[in-house]
Parts: sequence; C-alpha cells; structure tokens
Amino acid sequence: IDEIGIGMLGYAFMGKAHSNAFRKISYMTWPPPLRPRLVAIAGRNEEAVAGAAQRYGYERWTTDWRDIVSDPAIGLFDNGGPNSLHAEPTIAAAEAGKHVVCEKPLGRSADESHAIWQRVAATGVKHLCAFNYRFVPAVRLAREMIEAGELGEIRHFRGRYLQDWGDDPTLDSWRFHADEAGSGALGDLGAHVIDLARFLVGEISTVSALMRTFLAGRQVDDAVEAAVEFEHGAVGTIECTRLALGRRNAFQWEINGSKGSLAFDMERLNELQVFRADGDRARGFKTVLVSEADHPFWDFWWPPGHIIGWGETFVHEIHHLLRAIADDGDVAPYGATFEDGYRAAEVCDAIVRSSESGTRETITYR
Amino acid sequence: IDEIGIGMLGYAFMGKAHSNAFRKISYMTWPPPLRPRLVAIAGRNEEAVAGAAQRYGYERWTTDWRDIVSDPAIGLFDNGGPNSLHAEPTIAAAEAGKHVVCEKPLGRSADESHAIWQRVAATGVKHLCAFNYRFVPAVRLAREMIEAGELGEIRHFRGRYLQDWGDDPTLDSWRFHADEAGSGALGDLGAHVIDLARFLVGEISTVSALMRTFLAGRQVDDAVEAAVEFEHGAVGTIECTRLALGRRNAFQWEINGSKGSLAFDMERLNELQVFRADGDRARGFKTVLVSEADHPFWDFWWPPGHIIGWGETFVHEIHHLLRAIADDGDVAPYGATFEDGYRAAEVCDAIVRSSESGTRETITYR
Amino acid sequence: IDEIGIGMLGYAFMGKAHSNAFRKISYMTWPPPLRPRLVAIAGRNEEAVAGAAQRYGYERWTTDWRDIVSDPAIGLFDNGGPNSLHAEPTIAAAEAGKHVVCEKPLGRSADESHAIWQRVAATGVKHLCAFNYRFVPAVRLAREMIEAGELGEIRHFRGRYLQDWGDDPTLDSWRFHADEAGSGALGDLGAHVIDLARFLVGEISTVSALMRTFLAGRQVDDAVEAAVEFEHGAVGTIECTRLALGRRNAFQWEINGSKGSLAFDMERLNELQVFRADGDRARGFKTVLVSEADHPFWDFWWPPGHIIGWGETFVHEIHHLLRAIADDGDVAPYGATFEDGYRAAEVCDAIVRSSESGTRETITYR
Amino acid sequence: IDEIGIGMLGYAFMGKAHSNAFRKISYMTWPPPLRPRLVAIAGRNEEAVAGAAQRYGYERWTTDWRDIVSDPAIGLFDNGGPNSLHAEPTIAAAEAGKHVVCEKPLGRSADESHAIWQRVAATGVKHLCAFNYRFVPAVRLAREMIEAGELGEIRHFRGRYLQDWGDDPTLDSWRFHADEAGSGALGDLGAHVIDLARFLVGEISTVSALMRTFLAGRQVDDAVEAAVEFEHGAVGTIECTRLALGRRNAFQWEINGSKGSLAFDMERLNELQVFRADGDRARGFKTVLVSEADHPFWDFWWPPGHIIGWGETFVHEIHHLLRAIADDGDVAPYGATFEDGYRAAEVCDAIVRSSESGTRETITYR
Repeated sequence: IDEIGIGMLGYAFMGKAHSNAFRKISYMTWPPPLRPRLVAIAGRNEEAVAGAAQRYGYERWTTDWRDIVSDPAIGLFDNGGPNSLHAEPTIAAAEAGKHVVCEKPLGRSADESHAIWQRVAATGVKHLCAFNYRFVPAVRLAREMIEAGELGEIRHFRGRYLQDWGDDPTLDSWRFHADEAGSGALGDLGAHVIDLARFLVGEISTVSALMRTFLAGRQVDDAVEAAVEFEHGAVGTIECTRLALGRRNAFQWEINGSKGSLAFDMERLNELQVFRADGDRARGFKTVLVSEADHPFWDFWWPPGHIIGWGETFVHEIHHLLRAIADDGDVAPYGATFEDGYRAAEVCDAIVRSSESGTRETITYR
Repeated sequence: IDEIGIGMLGYAFMGKAHSNAFRKISYMTWPPPLRPRLVAIAGRNEEAVAGAAQRYGYERWTTDWRDIVSDPAIGLFDNGGPNSLHAEPTIAAAEAGKHVVCEKPLGRSADESHAIWQRVAATGVKHLCAFNYRFVPAVRLAREMIEAGELGEIRHFRGRYLQDWGDDPTLDSWRFHADEAGSGALGDLGAHVIDLARFLVGEISTVSALMRTFLAGRQVDDAVEAAVEFEHGAVGTIECTRLALGRRNAFQWEINGSKGSLAFDMERLNELQVFRADGDRARGFKTVLVSEADHPFWDFWWPPGHIIGWGETFVHEIHHLLRAIADDGDVAPYGATFEDGYRAAEVCDAIVRSSESGTRETITYR
Repeated sequence: IDEIGIGMLGYAFMGKAHSNAFRKISYMTWPPPLRPRLVAIAGRNEEAVAGAAQRYGYERWTTDWRDIVSDPAIGLFDNGGPNSLHAEPTIAAAEAGKHVVCEKPLGRSADESHAIWQRVAATGVKHLCAFNYRFVPAVRLAREMIEAGELGEIRHFRGRYLQDWGDDPTLDSWRFHADEAGSGALGDLGAHVIDLARFLVGEISTVSALMRTFLAGRQVDDAVEAAVEFEHGAVGTIECTRLALGRRNAFQWEINGSKGSLAFDMERLNELQVFRADGDRARGFKTVLVSEADHPFWDFWWPPGHIIGWGETFVHEIHHLLRAIADDGDVAPYGATFEDGYRAAEVCDAIVRSSESGTRETITYR
Repeated sequence: IDEIGIGMLGYAFMGKAHSNAFRKISYMTWPPPLRPRLVAIAGRNEEAVAGAAQRYGYERWTTDWRDIVSDPAIGLFDNGGPNSLHAEPTIAAAEAGKHVVCEKPLGRSADESHAIWQRVAATGVKHLCAFNYRFVPAVRLAREMIEAGELGEIRHFRGRYLQDWGDDPTLDSWRFHADEAGSGALGDLGAHVIDLARFLVGEISTVSALMRTFLAGRQVDDAVEAAVEFEHGAVGTIECTRLALGRRNAFQWEINGSKGSLAFDMERLNELQVFRADGDRARGFKTVLVSEADHPFWDFWWPPGHIIGWGETFVHEIHHLLRAIADDGDVAPYGATFEDGYRAAEVCDAIVRSSESGTRETITYR
C-alpha cells in the first residue's frame, strides 16, 4: 500500500476531525487506497499547532502554511482553516501539484469560490470540497435510492439545519467576523443544506429568501429562510439557524417523490425514514437503521445495528478522495468537487441578493 | 340549561365533524353552556341530506339553505359547505340574527372574506371561523406557555401541513374547482398554518412565496412554499402540500424562542414537544402528553394518558362558541373570529401575489 | 333500526366511557345494528347517579341495581361497577334474559369469574367482558396480520402496562380495597396484558411471577413481573405497574415472529409498528398510522391521518356486541366473552400462586 | 507520556473493536494516561492473524497465545477470544504480571468465572471485564443521576437485549457451540443486561427464569425471559433474544424510581430518556442527546449534537483502564472488574437453574 504525505492547515474543530480520519483510514478501511503519512500541520498559534502536531502525530508543525504547500513530501493538502484562508493556500498547493481538500464553504462568495475552482481545476489535481454529509451512510443510501428511481419524480425538498449555540452575545470567533467568514449561518449551515439539495434532488433554479441577524452587533446572519425551485420542477424550502434552542445539530431534510418519500435528521444520522407507495396495507415510514452489510460504507465497520458517529463521515470522505487519487478516478459525483463548492456559493449569493432585493433570484452558473 | 337551535349547511366531512360535536357537547362538557337542538340540515343532494338528517338526528332537512336562515327555531347557523357557499348563506343567517360558525377558509379571497366579516360583524351576532386546530389541547397549551412568556422572544416559526391524497389525477371534488374552492392546498391547508402562525406568534408582515400545481390539468395549486417575516421580528417558513407521500395529516410546526422551543405534529396531536433552556444537565425536548387534569379542555375527558382524537377539536371549538353565546362573551382571542378568517385570507392573497410577481409581498390589513 | 334498552350500573370512569359509546353508536356507526335507548342508570350515591342520568340522558336512575335487572324495557345490562359488584348483578341480569357486558376483570378470582361465566352462559344471552383494547384499530389490525400468517410462527410476546398514578399514599378508592378489587395492578392492568397476549398469540401455559406492593399499608399489589410461556412455543414477559413515573397509560407490547414483528404503545394508540422480513434493503419498522379506509373500524370515522381517541374503543366494542345481538352472531373471537374473562382470571390466579410459591405455575382451564 | 505494550488475543469482531480503541486513545483522549504500543496479536488462523497484525499495526503476530503472556514488552493483555479461551490465557498473563482485560462473559460458568477472578486478583494486576456498555455516555450519565439521588428509590428495572441475527439455521460459529460459548443469548446478551442492572440498580437477589432454543439442533439458548428482584426492593424483568426480527442491537432498558424515570435504547445510544417528577405542567420524558461538554466522556469528542458511535465505548473503557494502571487507581466502580464478571456469571447460573427447576432462585455470592 502506497503512502501519501498529508499537509494539514488548521488544528481546531476541523483539524481534529480530519486528522482522526487520516489515522483511521489506515486500518478501518482495509486495504486503504493509500496510507496517509501525517507530514506537517500548520496554524497561526505556535503553541497550539505544536500541541496538535504532538497529539495527532504530525511529523512537524509550522505557523506558515507556505511551508506546507512547498513540501515535496506532501501529496495531499487539507485546508481546514477559516474561510478567509481557503483561497490562497489551496490554490498554491494545487499549483504546487498537490491534491487538495478544502472545508466548506469553498470561498466567501461565488466570485472567490469560482476563482478557487478554476485555478485548481486548471492544475489537474484532485479536489474535494468537504461537504462531509454526502458521506453519511443514510445520505448515500438516499442518493442511491433516488438514482435507482425508487422515489419517482421528486416534488419536494424541505431542508433545515438547526443549531442553537449562536444564542450567546459574548461569543467571539472568526465565524462571526464578516471578513473571515463571509457569512454566518448561511455559509456554515446553509451551504450544507444547499449541497445535499443538489446532491439528492438536482440544481436549484430560484430562491426567494430572507436573512436575519437576531443578536445586536453581530456582523453575520444568524438565520436564513428560503423558498426554492429546482430545475426539474421540485419546490421546497431551505432554512438554517444558529438560534433554534434545543436543536444541537439538527440537519433535517425530507424529500417527497411520486413513488415515495425519505426523511432524515443528523442528530440520528444512522437512521433513514423511508416511505414506499407500494400498496401495503401496513402503510407508513420505515425507520431504517442504515447499518447493514450491503449499506454504503458499512464494510468498514461493525455488525448491523452497531451505530457509527458523526466523525466517521470524514473517514468515508477522505477514503473516497484517496481512492480517486490512487486510481486516478473521479471525485464526482459522490464526492463534492470544487465545482460543487462553487455552485453552492452561487446559491448562497442568490440568497443574499434575494434577501436584499426582496425578489426571487434566478441562479445561473458561469 | 338553555337550548339553542342548530341549522347546519353541509352533510359531508365537515357536516359529520360538526354534527358529532353538537351531540357530544350535551354530555361530555358538563354542564354545557347551551344544549344544542339539531333543528335542520341543508344540502344539495336530497337523498344524501335526508340520510344525514336521519343519521345525525336533525329534525328536518332541506335542499335550500334559505329555509334555514329564516327559521326562527335556529339560533346558530353552521356553514360547512363548499367555499363558494360561505358568503351568501353566512351573511344571510347573521342578518337574520343568527350566530354563525363558518368553515375555513372564510372566503375564496381577501375581498370576499372581508365582505363576510364586515357584513356579519355589523349585525352584532357571534361569529367563529372554524380554525379548529386552535382547539387541540397541545396547541392551546402552547399558546398559554407563549403568553406566559415561557418561550421568551419568538425567533422562528416553521409550519408545514403535509398530506398526500392529492396524488391522483382522477380525483374530482369541489376542492379542485377554482370557482368553488378559490384555491387548492393554499386555502385548504395553508390557511390552517397561517392561522396557527398568527395565533401562536403574531401577525405576518411579509411573504416570499411560490405555488405549484404538479398534476396536469388541475385548476388549483397542489403546494405552497413561503419564507415569512412576522411583525415582531420572527422569521420562518409556511408550507403546505397535498403531495407528500406518506404524510396523511402532518400539520407540523416548530417555534423557537429565546427561552425555549415547542414542536408539534397533528398526526400525534396529543403530544407537545417542549424544550426549556433551564440549565438542566439533562437537556432536551420533552414529549408532553397533553392530557393532564390541568391541561386545556381536559376536564371534559378521561384520566391522564387516555388520548383523544381529531374529532374532539370540534367539541372544544363549538363549546367555546356556545359559551360566548351563553355569556355574551368574546370569541376572540382563543377562538378565531371572522376577522381572523379575513386576516388569514389577506396572507393567502399575498402568497398568490408573491408567487406571481416573484417579489416579497407586504401584508396590510384593511 | 330497532332499539335496545340499556341499563347501566356505574356512573364514574367506566360509566362515562360506556355511556359515550352508547350515544355515539347511533350516528357514528351507520346504520347502527341497534339504536341504544338509555333507559336507566344505577349507582350507590343518589346525587351522583341522578347527575349522571341527567348528563348522559338516561330516562331514570336508581340506587338499587335490582331495579334495572328486572326492567322489561332493558335489553342490555352494562356493568361498569366495582369488581365486587360484577358477579351478582351480571348473573341476575342474564338470568332475567338481558344481554350483558361486564367490565374487566370479570371476577375477583378465577373461581368467581368461572361462576359468572357458567351462570351467564347457561342463560343463552350474549356476554362480553369489556377488554376494550381488542377494539383499538391497531390491535385488530395486528390480530388480522397474525391470523393471515404475516408474522409466521410467533416466538416472543413482551407486554407491559405502565401507569404512574399509584404513587400517592393518600389515594383511596375501591381499587385499593382487597375485598372490592380482588387485586391491584394485576386485575386492573395485568388482566389487559393477559387478554391481548391471548388475543394475539394464544393461550399462556405457564407463569413465573412475582408481585410487589411498594407503598406501606396498601392492601393490593402495585406491580407484577412475570416470565411466561405460551402453548404454541412462544415465550415472553407480562408486566404491569402503577408506579412507573412518566408513563401515564403506556400499555406497550411487542410480538416477534419468524416473518416479522409488531410493536404498539397505547399512548400512541393510532400507530402500529410493523417489521417485515421481506428482503427490502431499506429494512426497519414502519410506523403505520392505522387510519386508512380499509383498516379496522375506520369506516366509522374520518379521512386517513385524522386520529381517534381512547374513548372510541368503547364505540367499537359496544357496536360489536350490538351486532352480535342484532344478528344473533358470536361475540367471540374478536370480542372477549365471559369465557375470555374467566381465562384471564385463571392466569391472574396462577400469577398470584407463583408469586407466593416461587414456582413456575401451569395454567389449566376448567 | 509513558508507553504500555499491548498483547491482543483475537482478531475478529472484538479484536477489531479493541484495536481501534488502542489506536484512538493516543490522540482522541488527550493527553492519554498511557500511550498504547501494539506489540503483538495472537490468533488461531495464521493467515488471518497475520493480516490483522498488518491492518491494525501490531509489531508481530503469533498463533500461540503463550508467546504473548510471556513477552516482557507487553504490559496489558487483552483477551478478545472465544469464551473457552478466557480462563487460561488471562490467568497466565496476570500471573506473568500483566494487567488484563477480558471480554464478557468472563467465564462459561460461575465456577470458571470465580476461578479467573480469584486467580487474577491474587496477582495484584488491574483487571477489567469488558462490559463496554458501562462506557456509553448516556449509561454513565444515568449512573451519575441515580448516584446523586435524582431518581429517588428505584422500583423497577426492565432490561431487554434484542437482536435478530440468530434466525438462520445455517449459522455456525463458536457462539453456537456449547463447549466454546458456555451459553447462547444468555452469556452473549443477557450478561450485558445483568451487568447494567447491577451497575445502575444494584445486586439482583432472585430470578424466576426460563430459557428457550427455537432452532432445532442448536446447542445453546436463543432467548431468556426472567422476572427478577433486587436486594433493595426493586423488581423487574431481564430478557434477551437473538430472534427478535427487526431489532438489530436493541439493548433497551427502563428504570423507574420514586422521583423519576430513565429509558435507553442502544440503537440510539447517544440518547437518554429522562422523566423528572418536578411538578412542571409540561410533563414528560425528555430526549436528552448526551453530547454536552459536561457530559461523561464528551471532552474527548465533538461539539454538542455531533454524535458518536458504538465503537467509541471501547475507547472510553480502555481509557478508563489505562488511567487506573497509570495512577494505580481502581477499575471499580465505574469499570467492571473480574469480580463484576463473576457476579454476572452467578446471575446467569441462577437463570439456568431456575429455567431447569422452575423455581425462583436466590443468588448468593461466594
């Protein structure tokens, strides 16, 4: 099994999640497509990045991301830094010939995202935008069912990502700084909803949206509400908020088609609700525990019913990317490429425009 | 206990639901405010209306509603007919001095609804628009908790009324005829969502909406999607559809405030989900079975945990109206008056306008 | 439609539930098999029974049940009195030629229950022991599925009836007096579990049980725990308690067979959980809302998804009895006869014996 | 951070689960009490054990467990082999001065378990019987709430471990061989129920039980049903089965006390149902997502609401043992010692005796 050198930017939440994935891939997915070698980690705070290097087993650390993108030992650059640090390092790494994974949202705007995508795509490296929820087994199962026509023609998508940690005026983080984050709930949570809407249903054609900041003085949006149309005729809603008390990580969605329906909640991410219009007198939604031997990603794990956690979505995601690198295969359509990152950003921009203009905005891609 | 003569227009779904309520009030609510005497029932089909009279115990039947509105034995006129038959008989009854209850939507448009309200209000009779879901114990409990400040400042309302019976191109009923119904899912289901949004959160100030008819040849909308703003700052969504396979009567709503959250599903109408931000280490939504002795309407019924059905909402609603009649009290704010019926219609009209214009529409009341 | 005169003993909880059923049958089940005429109601407290007569519409009232059993206007005697008043009035009514319905448990012991059954059966009247939970639509659907072989061979029954109102040492009622009640949770709640176990799975052959009284000074049991075997090979548990805080009316059961499983909770009585081992990749329990047009008893009620309440089980039950009376048909097997009442009592007695002896007790029927 | 050499016996299900835990502890629990060094793995099949060594990163492999127990580089011996291989290697390792962890059930009988405990305890090493479900955050939270008196006096424990993989007559594994496994569902699943009953409620004093083998020719039990008494007065049931179709890993338990109740299901292991009798008008069970910063084990993981999986229970468990080793602290009471393994075996033996004798069996400990 060949090695691939990993260079990581960021040591906080996403640094932990991605580092864990790199380490688990070596033995949980067997045989792994490539064996990650944790070469270097970069971050702004020297003490913190040094501690992270020791903790996760990176061979070295640096406070200058430029050290990583130029390191020949590194084959994959993973950008888990703040949104404002997505463009430059990611492009530099790709132009230095490294494959790249970048956290979502890809950029702080459609313009920035488009530039990242174009610059990186031109290099020919593999690129993945870390919409990790595509790699929840229940989400992939949903995609497979829809692709197989089991839901028929899709009529509705209702997606909402509800959290409640934002209800604290004393909070400070780059996530509340407009220049670093670009937006608030929109890019943080709404982008996930948009990506799964595109992944499961198809392109969004229009949005009629409004954004709201509830806490005085906050630079970014706390919540987004949108009515949406899809290219193939479905309609629905996209919502996100950091102020839904009691909802910790409730990314909930429901899809209704002409043959059945699906529903999901990230707080119970091992379960998929499935309704089939099959004429059974016992009619209702099934609670499917997506943990069978023939379910997506399950060959990595345990016997049926022994559930996995949120952290494993990154194992699946990075595994997918390593497989594409090892086999020179495609990241799309099951992984989100930078094009997907850009497209989500176009929808986010349309939401901002609609919120400001009060008109239904049509999404067009460049 | 005084009697009140009832004249009923309509013998189908709503005729059954209301007739059942009139009969149960006499012994389940004790002592009843007034004892309903089922004087007459009117309907277009002679055989059907005669059968209904026999079944529900009306003393006589007629195919001409004018027979009812002029009958001195009748003190309360109940209009459970198609939407196109709401205005004329209801106004005539009120002008003949009868108290009136009318099914929702009050009229087929804001104009018609406004006229009904104004004409009826001018007579001084009691009027109730049958938004029966205000009379679900869990909904009333939610209202009481919000009024008492237990949720703090409201930030979000998410309401959706999902059914699936509309997915049949062979269906025919007045509900699909634009002239009789006025609209499709909007007036049938959306009006309920709008009424509870107003009942629980407050006036809606803007809507950004779209409507969709999925089945070719259908005259009315199958689904509505809207992002909404409330006067006091909350934002959210209002949705309804007759094409959500697997959802039979899923009127679901969630409210998030600065101190807590509530959630509800009509398919489990005895339950209210309650989250309180009270610092308890055991943090989460409670599944409250709204059937305690001190819960709304529960003195009429059974010991705790012995749930009631959808039909009982009409018992509570009509009881409320009879109490207002008997005591010369107010139908508002716990019952929906014709003003509430009119206000819901203004929101419905704004949704239609927004769907057509693609712009965020502001709601103004006359 | 012929009338049948009703004589009711008891005006409290069961008096209310049964009286409501008699009144609703006349118009909710259409056409009713017979039209109940509420002739007389008997009870010990004169003021209370007079009030009940007025409330529920009985033509007359009495404090002496003997007045009822001899009244030629009465065709059906309904015994909703305390357990100690089941035997004598019920037998007297039957011997006077009246059909009889008696609340459960039939008697305070197998001996007493056997005597009631034998004496009443000898008269040839129709007799029904009011195990009303057989008449929950979801329970009947379960029975139909099992009869049709959809679960295959039954291997497990787990039934528990959990309430929490017993946790109050100041409570006083006939239900805590050993002479009036016979037993505590056992006859009140456990008998229901036993009846549904027999209804759905078959005869119980052995019990290994223990009973417990938690509150000092209480004459009757608060809780029962039993491991049970069924004649056809299934095994499981039967439990009941009045001291499960937070459970108001949680009669929960689960059945596992060789082809599927079913699960149920009375607090959500409109729902049946259904698992089919049908090879579907989307594998799980369905939450079936038992409210479809082709579901048991549903032709009496509303469109799908518009749920019914606990009180309606009595409508179904009494309707079933009236149909048997009208058509000279059988109460069994869908209704519980006095033989079923007796058989449940044999199991209860075996539980008492096992609790005392510490040995597995075999149930034999006389 | 000091290293500790690990010697692992077994490479299948438990070998994978434990190896994963050893690897994750080094970076997920930070700083780890000791850093596991994967020295050697032993197993019967050479090809399989060699593959496992490569996969999980053990420095060497062997087909003879004696190679491990004598290796001075090994400080902790982990026995994940079949039940028949628990005694000899575990005792040998302890007598060679290695700390030991042994999968449950500790032995195939109370006699064997007692011997393992006594022999190992005499050496003074740390010993842990791998009842990993004590290390589910929700289970530990339950224990903490009960210890703090939040449930008051415990009255009921209802525990059942339901799986369905046993319904296949072609299955073959050591788990179905009486000599290797000792028992079937009893030791595999029932032992877990017994351990949590002891962990949460206290010692079991009597059992009234029956066991059943449904599939012809199978040497071990498929299911166990038992009514139980606890020393401090609680009563309840213990059940387990491998034949509950639709239940994949449904280890469900409920505890009722004089102040509140708790309920749990391993298929949703991140959730604890909590009822408090606190007089709140909004009365009901809370669904607590046990993932808050102040919840057990959560400092190792993610932000609230980002759930963990079944596999992480082993991370917590091994971490607990390494902490005890590093600090020379106690494994008890939060970890299960070999004494706990023995005590569970006494209850298992009493269940077997009761099933055979048909009498209530009293549990006494040596």
